[in-house]
Amino acid sequence: MMTRSAPTMAPYHENTAAFRDGTRTPRDFLEACIERITELEPSVGAFVSLDLDAARAASDQSSARWAAGTPASQIDGMPVGIKDIIETADLPTKMGSPIFEQYRPWFDSASVSALREAGAVVVGKTVTTEFAATQPRGTRNPWDLARTPGGSSSGSAASVGCGMLPAALGTQVVGSIIRPSGFCGVVGFKPSLGALNRGGSLDLLSQSCTGVLAASLGDAWLTARAIAERVGGDPGYAPLAGPDAPPAPRRPTCVALLRTDGWPIATSDAKAELLRAAEALRAAGINVISADDTPDIAALEAALPEAEPVTRTINAWEWRWPLNVFGRRDHAALSPSIQERMEAMARLTADDYVRALQRREEIRTLHARLLAHADCAISLTAPGAAPVGLGSTGNPIFVVPGSLLGVPVVTLPKLADGGLPLGLQLIGYRGRDADLFALAAAIEQIVPGAY
Amino acid sequence: MMTRSAPTMAPYHENTAAFRDGTRTPRDFLEACIERITELEPSVGAFVSLDLDAARAASDQSSARWAAGTPASQIDGMPVGIKDIIETADLPTKMGSPIFEQYRPWFDSASVSALREAGAVVVGKTVTTEFAATQPRGTRNPWDLARTPGGSSSGSAASVGCGMLPAALGTQVVGSIIRPSGFCGVVGFKPSLGALNRGGSLDLLSQSCTGVLAASLGDAWLTARAIAERVGGDPGYAPLAGPDAPPAPRRPTCVALLRTDGWPIATSDAKAELLRAAEALRAAGINVISADDTPDIAALEAALPEAEPVTRTINAWEWRWPLNVFGRRDHAALSPSIQERMEAMARLTADDYVRALQRREEIRTLHARLLAHADCAISLTAPGAAPVGLGSTGNPIFVVPGSLLGVPVVTLPKLADGGLPLGLQLIGYRGRDADLFALAAAIEQIVPGAY
Repeated sequence: MMTRSAPTMAPYHENTAAFRDGTRTPRDFLEACIERITELEPSVGAFVSLDLDAARAASDQSSARWAAGTPASQIDGMPVGIKDIIETADLPTKMGSPIFEQYRPWFDSASVSALREAGAVVVGKTVTTEFAATQPRGTRNPWDLARTPGGSSSGSAASVGCGMLPAALGTQVVGSIIRPSGFCGVVGFKPSLGALNRGGSLDLLSQSCTGVLAASLGDAWLTARAIAERVGGDPGYAPLAGPDAPPAPRRPTCVALLRTDGWPIATSDAKAELLRAAEALRAAGINVISADDTPDIAALEAALPEAEPVTRTINAWEWRWPLNVFGRRDHAALSPSIQERMEAMARLTADDYVRALQRREEIRTLHARLLAHADCAISLTAPGAAPVGLGSTGNPIFVVPGSLLGVPVVTLPKLADGGLPLGLQLIGYRGRDADLFALAAAIEQIVPGAY
Repeated sequence: MMTRSAPTMAPYHENTAAFRDGTRTPRDFLEACIERITELEPSVGAFVSLDLDAARAASDQSSARWAAGTPASQIDGMPVGIKDIIETADLPTKMGSPIFEQYRPWFDSASVSALREAGAVVVGKTVTTEFAATQPRGTRNPWDLARTPGGSSSGSAASVGCGMLPAALGTQVVGSIIRPSGFCGVVGFKPSLGALNRGGSLDLLSQSCTGVLAASLGDAWLTARAIAERVGGDPGYAPLAGPDAPPAPRRPTCVALLRTDGWPIATSDAKAELLRAAEALRAAGINVISADDTPDIAALEAALPEAEPVTRTINAWEWRWPLNVFGRRDHAALSPSIQERMEAMARLTADDYVRALQRREEIRTLHARLLAHADCAISLTAPGAAPVGLGSTGNPIFVVPGSLLGVPVVTLPKLADGGLPLGLQLIGYRGRDADLFALAAAIEQIVPGAY
């Protein structure tokens, strides 16, 4: 059953002229979102909590700021969803776990604090898998309710994917933004490592990032920049840098096609779709190279099968605390998958961890060599469309490399598999997030959509 | 008024044979601590909270484990204090701020979780300045109640300094472990950046570290290792590595004497004391070199005046969140010094921050060159003894370099100024914490104490 229709609204930031001249208000925009939520939320289940009264009140304040010519930012009044591992002072934060059922944070996380300062309207908390790991919490894919929306940012992807919201926050340590964005047909942005402040989020792993899922590239950029401007990046990291407006399109000279070790298990539709995108780029005069052409790409491709095991080792070590204290509070409330993870954790040594950190650095160095050859890399976001069933969030094989590398990644809803969405993943270079958006804006124009 | 007498007990780890054969128990050790607390706490004010009943119960369980030959670690039963920015599930964590007066964490922080797993007995939470910044909270120096104990780990230093506890946790981003350790006559250990897991601590700045203040080098090492073994370091960092037992003494071949830009304002007593330590090392056949002998040291000394401004810029940017959300909750509850800091924060740009990060890296590179010349560096911990008055925690000029550099630092209570304690600061190299302890153990034997 396909419940999604095309988004009924232009990107939020394209309404700002109307907000200024009063022909439309942020409250109008919000009401359209609420209508969509009312219609679809009962079947999709994207939210853990909603506070529509508070959202309406905040929206009216925003409408007044626009009318007075004093918006706090270009996203003043934009309805947003917040992944439920990101703390909010006015809404519960349940972390996808019954252990946190009664938890009430005292403060807004850094990203939420920044979004509120920018005037964005927090509509609700979106469903996350347990601790943003693998155990799903029931959200359905709005394109086909029998399928997973992906995870761990399940509710953020599903809500944006069916036009309930123009943008939502997610986090990614393995594939938690890019994979569900692909499955739900939305733009996903995982920034460079540390580029957006994760403070106040249960998002403690060394390669994890806060990022944005959005219906448009422009809203994704503006949301991310609103955070970086106000609360910076993680301590010790350069904040996301770039223009105040969405970066103008910049046509790449050369793009690297990464097959990754996911290629042998990808569906023939999915493979054909990535090759279709590559052909469209070639037809536009852009050079597309691969491991067959370039030893540096071949060397990276040869290392990428390690991305997932290296990531799992690093994450497992870094999860020892806090999972052990969660388990001490209520072990039975942890899912079997988390309990298994804890057993694996207990077998790891500090030496295993340090070796995995070193290997991660080596693979990052291999990737950095691509800069001499290609403006960015392209790949799939998953071996195929979202799998049937709600028991798994899908295979992360295509998305874990971008997480391990710590580089910016954008996915565009350009591909399809069996009529369902799949993402065209664009992989950039550390610290060059704005450039990746400029490339993505050009590629968005060049590659025809599949649906 | 000097209230301190020499510690009545040997280091905790030297009691373990007695614990095993039953001639002494951890409970006996705890009761001696409690006696000291009962005597001195009313005048010193080292604790925010104490839970002696819980401590006694935990201590009895430890006594039973030792009697059964199954201690959880070498510090099983050791009474410890926890700086009150480090979260504890069973005791309030007030962060030195009235804003957190009613705050009750749900979980133990990583370090506390590890110490409990190791069998250590949490006696209470020790006084911190407001948010571990500069506003003192009334703790007095046990060597002279009219003076500051230093900060921000004020209660940890004071409690160990008068024999209430063998060890306590502290944190340092500018000088918050090494400075109060010097003022209170205890061993202080600030590890390499990231070597001890800071999870669950209001300790969010990029050069901040969890560390240990202790009455002996051995207990400091064992406490730190107990944490690293169980919860590792910060995500992305190699955990503190080294032997299970306190590292055996290793005599340095050469030591670099760092005067730093604090030298011109140091008291003549303090300067004479550092030179006395240098002479003792020379008399033992150890080469002591300085900026006068070695251009690499001169280059580092020339850069060290930047340590404090660069640190202030980095910290101010990294404090924007969470201080802004604290202020939104109750601005009037913030001290004037924090309010001033927030005004400075608001003037900073992301470019200022990124430039400061780059300069920090450059100064770290300058320091790393000393490895070719010297086993470690020595310096003072402050320009003189703890200042009179409780309004300031003292000048951090001698301790900020070690924080900026991200290297391990140990201070030994070997020097004096006007009959009051001052530390001999030993500055090591990143990741070589165990070696610094080995050098410290040798230097401890070579340099005579001043009191």
